[in-house]
Amino acid sequence: MHTLVDAYSTEHPGDVAGLKQFLSALPLKKVKRLALIGKTEGTATINDFSRQVAVDNAKNTISELGGEALLEKSTIIFSTGCEGVLSPCVYIFSVLDDDSDLKLSSESLRLSMGGAQTRPIHATELVTLKHITLVSDAVKASMAEANLSASQVKLVFVKSPILTHQAAVKTGDTSVIGRAGSSGQSRGAAALGVALALGEIGMEEIRNVKIGTDLNQFSNKCMAFSGTEVDVGEVLVLGNRLGKTGGFRVHTTPIEDILDTGSIKKMLLGAGCSLDEIGELDNTDLLKATFLKAGVASSGLVRGDRTTIFQSELDPDKHMRAAASGLIGGLLGTGKLFVSGGTEHQAKTGGGIFSCITKV
Amino acid sequence: MHTLVDAYSTEHPGDVAGLKQFLSALPLKKVKRLALIGKTEGTATINDFSRQVAVDNAKNTISELGGEALLEKSTIIFSTGCEGVLSPCVYIFSVLDDDSDLKLSSESLRLSMGGAQTRPIHATELVTLKHITLVSDAVKASMAEANLSASQVKLVFVKSPILTHQAAVKTGDTSVIGRAGSSGQSRGAAALGVALALGEIGMEEIRNVKIGTDLNQFSNKCMAFSGTEVDVGEVLVLGNRLGKTGGFRVHTTPIEDILDTGSIKKMLLGAGCSLDEIGELDNTDLLKATFLKAGVASSGLVRGDRTTIFQSELDPDKHMRAAASGLIGGLLGTGKLFVSGGTEHQAKTGGGIFSCITKV
Amino acid sequence: MHTLVDAYSTEHPGDVAGLKQFLSALPLKKVKRLALIGKTEGTATINDFSRQVAVDNAKNTISELGGEALLEKSTIIFSTGCEGVLSPCVYIFSVLDDDSDLKLSSESLRLSMGGAQTRPIHATELVTLKHITLVSDAVKASMAEANLSASQVKLVFVKSPILTHQAAVKTGDTSVIGRAGSSGQSRGAAALGVALALGEIGMEEIRNVKIGTDLNQFSNKCMAFSGTEVDVGEVLVLGNRLGKTGGFRVHTTPIEDILDTGSIKKMLLGAGCSLDEIGELDNTDLLKATFLKAGVASSGLVRGDRTTIFQSELDPDKHMRAAASGLIGGLLGTGKLFVSGGTEHQAKTGGGIFSCITKV
Amino acid sequence: MHTLVDAYSTEHPGDVAGLKQFLSALPLKKVKRLALIGKTEGTATINDFSRQVAVDNAKNTISELGGEALLEKSTIIFSTGCEGVLSPCVYIFSVLDDDSDLKLSSESLRLSMGGAQTRPIHATELVTLKHITLVSDAVKASMAEANLSASQVKLVFVKSPILTHQAAVKTGDTSVIGRAGSSGQSRGAAALGVALALGEIGMEEIRNVKIGTDLNQFSNKCMAFSGTEVDVGEVLVLGNRLGKTGGFRVHTTPIEDILDTGSIKKMLLGAGCSLDEIGELDNTDLLKATFLKAGVASSGLVRGDRTTIFQSELDPDKHMRAAASGLIGGLLGTGKLFVSGGTEHQAKTGGGIFSCITKV
Repeated sequence: MHTLVDAYSTEHPGDVAGLKQFLSALPLKKVKRLALIGKTEGTATINDFSRQVAVDNAKNTISELGGEALLEKSTIIFSTGCEGVLSPCVYIFSVLDDDSDLKLSSESLRLSMGGAQTRPIHATELVTLKHITLVSDAVKASMAEANLSASQVKLVFVKSPILTHQAAVKTGDTSVIGRAGSSGQSRGAAALGVALALGEIGMEEIRNVKIGTDLNQFSNKCMAFSGTEVDVGEVLVLGNRLGKTGGFRVHTTPIEDILDTGSIKKMLLGAGCSLDEIGELDNTDLLKATFLKAGVASSGLVRGDRTTIFQSELDPDKHMRAAASGLIGGLLGTGKLFVSGGTEHQAKTGGGIFSCITKV
Repeated sequence: MHTLVDAYSTEHPGDVAGLKQFLSALPLKKVKRLALIGKTEGTATINDFSRQVAVDNAKNTISELGGEALLEKSTIIFSTGCEGVLSPCVYIFSVLDDDSDLKLSSESLRLSMGGAQTRPIHATELVTLKHITLVSDAVKASMAEANLSASQVKLVFVKSPILTHQAAVKTGDTSVIGRAGSSGQSRGAAALGVALALGEIGMEEIRNVKIGTDLNQFSNKCMAFSGTEVDVGEVLVLGNRLGKTGGFRVHTTPIEDILDTGSIKKMLLGAGCSLDEIGELDNTDLLKATFLKAGVASSGLVRGDRTTIFQSELDPDKHMRAAASGLIGGLLGTGKLFVSGGTEHQAKTGGGIFSCITKV
Repeated sequence: MHTLVDAYSTEHPGDVAGLKQFLSALPLKKVKRLALIGKTEGTATINDFSRQVAVDNAKNTISELGGEALLEKSTIIFSTGCEGVLSPCVYIFSVLDDDSDLKLSSESLRLSMGGAQTRPIHATELVTLKHITLVSDAVKASMAEANLSASQVKLVFVKSPILTHQAAVKTGDTSVIGRAGSSGQSRGAAALGVALALGEIGMEEIRNVKIGTDLNQFSNKCMAFSGTEVDVGEVLVLGNRLGKTGGFRVHTTPIEDILDTGSIKKMLLGAGCSLDEIGELDNTDLLKATFLKAGVASSGLVRGDRTTIFQSELDPDKHMRAAASGLIGGLLGTGKLFVSGGTEHQAKTGGGIFSCITKV
Repeated sequence: MHTLVDAYSTEHPGDVAGLKQFLSALPLKKVKRLALIGKTEGTATINDFSRQVAVDNAKNTISELGGEALLEKSTIIFSTGCEGVLSPCVYIFSVLDDDSDLKLSSESLRLSMGGAQTRPIHATELVTLKHITLVSDAVKASMAEANLSASQVKLVFVKSPILTHQAAVKTGDTSVIGRAGSSGQSRGAAALGVALALGEIGMEEIRNVKIGTDLNQFSNKCMAFSGTEVDVGEVLVLGNRLGKTGGFRVHTTPIEDILDTGSIKKMLLGAGCSLDEIGELDNTDLLKATFLKAGVASSGLVRGDRTTIFQSELDPDKHMRAAASGLIGGLLGTGKLFVSGGTEHQAKTGGGIFSCITKV
């Protein structure tokens, strides 16, 4: 088995031309897992339907070309918001069954991937311990599929439903209504699920964590998203293991804050990039996928200075994504990469996580 | 005479605590020119009154502490929009008359500054040749005050009125209405005025330039802003000259595009910054003011990739400012600097301009 | 043949539960024309994909239940924007072939309906005379299908593509770029097409009309919409004729301005409503569909008073729709109706059009 | 003593031309209380500084023309948001000392007015019982000044500070942070203060009310606003009493919901308006000031139908104000009136309050 990584640009959220091209070139019957991690260019407000357009079109295309069988093996995660210099694109991953290749690179670390879904998460369960444990179980199932141990896992994507005001009101339960409306709460619960599955936080502690409040409890390997277009949690786990064929490897590092270019550069230099005479990154062609999750502490302070991230007409995540697009865009010379904002329980307060997949 | 440069943070647009503190420490009777270049944290929509709050409060404070005489020597330019990691702050410049110091540093280049206003620019004149020539005249008056030749000028700030839809409709002139509503058009006219004054474009060519359309005609030393809070053009000219006392110097470079960290780093290295072992900028303490004007071509392409800058619910300038805040914030480790979007006639299409003032 | 009128609420733009229920109850093989006129709850910005979700889901449902044959006979028009008290809903019309019923009501006026599409309208054609004539031709085809003469036509819906900035830039033609980005321009061209087809404006005059500028040229029977989700013009024509079976009738009146409750009430009283003791409308149960197109003059004045409709952070159409929802909602006691803003060439400047379908 | 009522339009939030004109015509030394109740045309987001511009300019003008003595007797309340057909205007009230007039109309009810301020309300006190009691005390002081008993009071305006996220974070108290950011919470606390002062709710019950949650506890005579531009609560009380000179009277009625034209018309007919042949209001010239506070239940349902008021990119208050502007504009034929959204503890859930001042 080996895992392929590729990317395609989209002209609009429903654009599946790149997906079709990629699937057409693939031996679809050998695909054990297909995954899409993409950005859509919506408003990121509650009435943003860009993800639904993207997911519906992707599903239709996968069904059409690979049948229901392929669709069932597919993990589709779209995150909205392409502010700043971000260029809408989708990363596509596929795990192929090809035993004959096994000996080729059995001695070194190679990318492995697995995916799973939770069952539908009810409004009354969202942003509760149940939400956390459902995600945790799906992470474990994904790890099993990828044949990865907790220590081998480098990155976990989770998409989970957001508890909308509307859905909360329908439950008639004021405690549910009190939890509603926050994308960050949903992301936080999902991230705690990852931390639980990876053993970063124990079950005992998880029970006592106040979601969205006890922000010193976090995973170091999770990027979590929420959206109204899903009713289940979607999980994708990436890691490296020996004996794995294929030519890719995944790298992850925490970042201290949204301006922490140092941690990013150090990881990239370790992964094979180099520096030119004025300290600009070189040899970045080896990067096949780049993921940045950037957060800002709820004080709104960045390096001690006040920002307007929590004090403006814009959603805080939009500030973060746009700023982070410039930061990473400046380092890599492109905006065609994956940037997301909001790191509740995915990093220490105000921190973030950076990850990339390199060709080895 | 020498020119001082300082900065203060603001808690809100009307915050003049920093201004008061600075003015209190200054020998106000010796001040030949006072200038504020600041950002306010408004929505950057037509109903954004943050600049008016800032200007009104600054004027009141200057009057109170320095009388009408000081207010008449003051140039006040506020630009709205503190998206991303920008931290609202104001740069304050003052030219002091102190002949006794002259010999101190007569042999090297030092910062010199001058300012002037146009007369009120009428709605029918905005975004026309008259707008351009009025700004040009004010630039020339500023140069004379600063005793700077065109080649010595490094940076010109211009704030000019925006032709609002409402004002245009009042003229009853459909050609005026056709020009209305664009911040970019007003900035472009102002920038062409700078280019004319500095001899970057001749009067012959200026007459033929279609404002906002012939974007291959531009100044290389202008940052232009527009706003509803002014009815005149405000101009501030910065440059270096020999025989000038004081401890500051201004540097300016064009940048190729919004991701062009290379040009910025080269200029900063030339200005005295250095690099650490992973190519991060060091010795940035010498930067006393930092100005970035970033633009994106109307195609919305950045390095050949589609962005949503002109295809979203957000004003393009907001995308640019937020992304640029991350870019420059990543380089300098702070968001407490001046970033503005929109470089019509201030750079080649999609380009921009970067400037800083260093302590020498 | 007779025409049925019904309505269903939607929980979200992709909600087709009501559509399924309606189609299930219909003898689909007898359907000569199916039409949906609905509102979606998007942001009404360029990155609003709510209409695409609605159209895609409606098409899938119609195909599923009625096959491609039914889909080809379907006219689907969704307009975005459910501000104020509007309640997202879809009106559904169907023309049924049932000769046996003919004698039932041969002596009086009954609702008749026809639809047609233009061919795809290219970016270079949008907001030009070609746009107008393509729409005009589709209106004529629709009238033929409905067997309605121009004087019998009461209301024409047109949805046509909007010339996006992106599409305009791709043509490389600056005159096309100059026309881009305005929803109002696209609506105006479509409305002029209707006026041409109905003989409200002659071909001679149409040639000389400056779209979006010569606003004294207009249809009195058109509601036009634009959107990025279509590349063709969709036309639906409604009118009354003798000898038509079925139990519905359509009524239309121009309104003087966005506050003109008088014209609306007069038409409703003529259509069968009555007044209670404090002048509130009664007997409104007979209204089976209600359509309001409200505009405001570009001066922004309403009854001589300044509004902020063209001077705020909100799109003018959003102001209009929300205000109009309150106006008509106050009259009829419900927000479950169709309200749209922007009446370029669909009414005199600042005017509008009101229409309803009654059960007779 | 008698109370005058007038109104002036504004061209922008800082426009004080109308105020100057009014004050110039007034015998300022006889003024016992001056009050402004106005709307500004800001974005109604946290970075909306329109109210500050309006308040600063109004204060400066009052000081200039009437000195600090007049300013101390002035109550200035600006509420932001002029969506829909609202036309920005300010109502100006003045209480004049003129004993000689007393006999003129001693036998009938006439408008009386009084105002007061709370002391600054600290972040830790906002949206707590302290907030409520401080407002209650200011209401009582206002009643004393107006010589009005609780039963004579018809309308109380309260403006109180909003607990911003930023201010809450500075307290370091998580319970304060939990209450932050909601305009509705601040309005609700203020309204409960009015209910307490007027005896609509007793002190016992007030202690147990959960602000923002127990919405069945409310005043029937309060319009409450919140904003970042104030740090105190501003209170203005209006009522009618015998023996009062002057030619005005105030009327107030609760409304059932945002579409309840019936209650509004009934009150207006009682106040002297009449109906024309199609039930349109006539004789509306006698209305000298019109105030509408409209709310929608948190379910977002209006008359049982789903709206998007709590499910869109727009602030719910913007939906409400714009819709209400159309409703009341349709009734009165003008948008030059005062409309505000959000009726937490100012009406039953989803209800509102309507008030007007008539010339008698």
